[in-house]
Amino acid sequence: MSDIEDNIPTIQDIEEAHERILPYIHFTPILTSDTINEFAGAKIWFKCENLQKVGAFKIRGALNAVLLLPPELKEKGVATHSSGNHAQALARAARQNGLNAYIVMPENAPKIKKNAVLGYGAEVFFCKPNLASRESKLKEVVKKTGASVIHPYNDYRVIAGQATAAFELLQEAADLDVIMTPVGGGGLISGTALIAHYISPDTQVIGGEPAGADDAFLSLQAGKIVTKENPSSIADGLLATIGPKTFEIMQKHVAQIITVEEEEIIDSMKMIWERMKIIVEPSAAVPLAALLKNKSQFSGKRIGIILSGGNVDLENLPF
Amino acid sequence: MSDIEDNIPTIQDIEEAHERILPYIHFTPILTSDTINEFAGAKIWFKCENLQKVGAFKIRGALNAVLLLPPELKEKGVATHSSGNHAQALARAARQNGLNAYIVMPENAPKIKKNAVLGYGAEVFFCKPNLASRESKLKEVVKKTGASVIHPYNDYRVIAGQATAAFELLQEAADLDVIMTPVGGGGLISGTALIAHYISPDTQVIGGEPAGADDAFLSLQAGKIVTKENPSSIADGLLATIGPKTFEIMQKHVAQIITVEEEEIIDSMKMIWERMKIIVEPSAAVPLAALLKNKSQFSGKRIGIILSGGNVDLENLPF
Repeated sequence: MSDIEDNIPTIQDIEEAHERILPYIHFTPILTSDTINEFAGAKIWFKCENLQKVGAFKIRGALNAVLLLPPELKEKGVATHSSGNHAQALARAARQNGLNAYIVMPENAPKIKKNAVLGYGAEVFFCKPNLASRESKLKEVVKKTGASVIHPYNDYRVIAGQATAAFELLQEAADLDVIMTPVGGGGLISGTALIAHYISPDTQVIGGEPAGADDAFLSLQAGKIVTKENPSSIADGLLATIGPKTFEIMQKHVAQIITVEEEEIIDSMKMIWERMKIIVEPSAAVPLAALLKNKSQFSGKRIGIILSGGNVDLENLPF
Repeated sequence: MSDIEDNIPTIQDIEEAHERILPYIHFTPILTSDTINEFAGAKIWFKCENLQKVGAFKIRGALNAVLLLPPELKEKGVATHSSGNHAQALARAARQNGLNAYIVMPENAPKIKKNAVLGYGAEVFFCKPNLASRESKLKEVVKKTGASVIHPYNDYRVIAGQATAAFELLQEAADLDVIMTPVGGGGLISGTALIAHYISPDTQVIGGEPAGADDAFLSLQAGKIVTKENPSSIADGLLATIGPKTFEIMQKHVAQIITVEEEEIIDSMKMIWERMKIIVEPSAAVPLAALLKNKSQFSGKRIGIILSGGNVDLENLPF
């Protein structure tokens, strides 16, 4: 076991993670839009993780975790429960490295997501769509296979991997006043906050969170993890509850969480599609929605936004 | 008047065009997709002119033409008739350089296009939706204003500008066996064929054209310009008839035109949206459709595709 499993990632951990995963990922482009800058009254660099492999930043953390496994554990494969981008990311990361992947998914997960995971060669196990059933099914799978469980965010190896997106952003867009990310389980924002703290300490890290799933906002306010009952949002990648590891980092290094309403998310999503000609999922539009909601706070600033993903059902758009 | 108005652009003309327009454009990213490569059985570099300013390569040619005008003509502005991407491109190129732009559009042009042109500060004149009315209205506007007419493609300054997209592509993706572009009036493909001829003569340039608007295909076959009666395709950027200047260059330097059916265009468009997470208009999907139609011809090859634009009505998608 490497130290990184038990300790908040250091700058070296993140730099090494980047070197480790770089052969397997896209060094994604950073795009800008004069029209959006004008509308926002700020200068925005969009780090396009929607154009990343599997269509989301999640491949970064999954790859780092998979590549850090010792050979005797690699042989037994990896497992997780997820119906979202982490499932695809782990399946792909495993296949790229010759590992078996065992993915527990709720039986009502969209067919398109099941097929994507199967397409990456993972073995899929179905469970009832509730946390207890997911966890017991995962335990059963692990008992049978000996696979290593890779949590989607509450895992320092994953957090170090997610940090590499902002690491690239900060290499190309210097002197950012702010970096904004969406907040779900907190893997992306905590990784982002760590690397900004290490290499660009004057850069504030600010999260955008749907009001209907604002557990991170509430938790930072309360000083302890607060679970949101029945979280709900069109930003379906952001419904997870933050974990102890991501929460601790967020408490130390995240400046602010801004919550946004559903219409604000949809409007920002549409603006990105129309103006930038790229496909982002609702979750990825949440930071821009947060910026536009608090325009005066960001007026004239240099802002990096991580566009987290682009996996969306084209036949079921909200506009 | 510069020589370039009367002569096929030289390599110097194209290099100078690139330097001239670079401060005003995006050096657009080149993206790849493992999934599409696997499906196509080839290695494809997509040059993303859909992510270009105004959402299309057209800004390159418009800027080059505008910037080459002598001061006394700049003062009088520029004019064109177009309801498509060239109208937006010329309006923007003019505004960026403090020129007036006069755009003749058919009165039934989509509102979204009118608004885009007006948004760039151009003056819009409406005409009946037929060529005679467009031309007489344009003449009237030019008589009144003294503006220089910038043709969307049958203009060597424009062709030299469009050539800069492939110029960038060839700088980043070396040893391409083939470059593919869509064919409308022929500005993009003739510029592409010229620069490939100059700096990468072993690279074949191949066009994709809708079967419903296959005037370039028919013209190259006949050895003279053939007009297609009532051209029709979902690829509404490709309905124009090639001009004498673009045709001459195509005859010399284009290896082949492949025609494709409407469903093939829509399938390829959807594949690009789903797999690459970028928005392309139907016209931009035509080269990939042509490649997939003739898979065996391209098997194992290194292929550059210019994704020409991303301007599409999100509320009226063909899937």
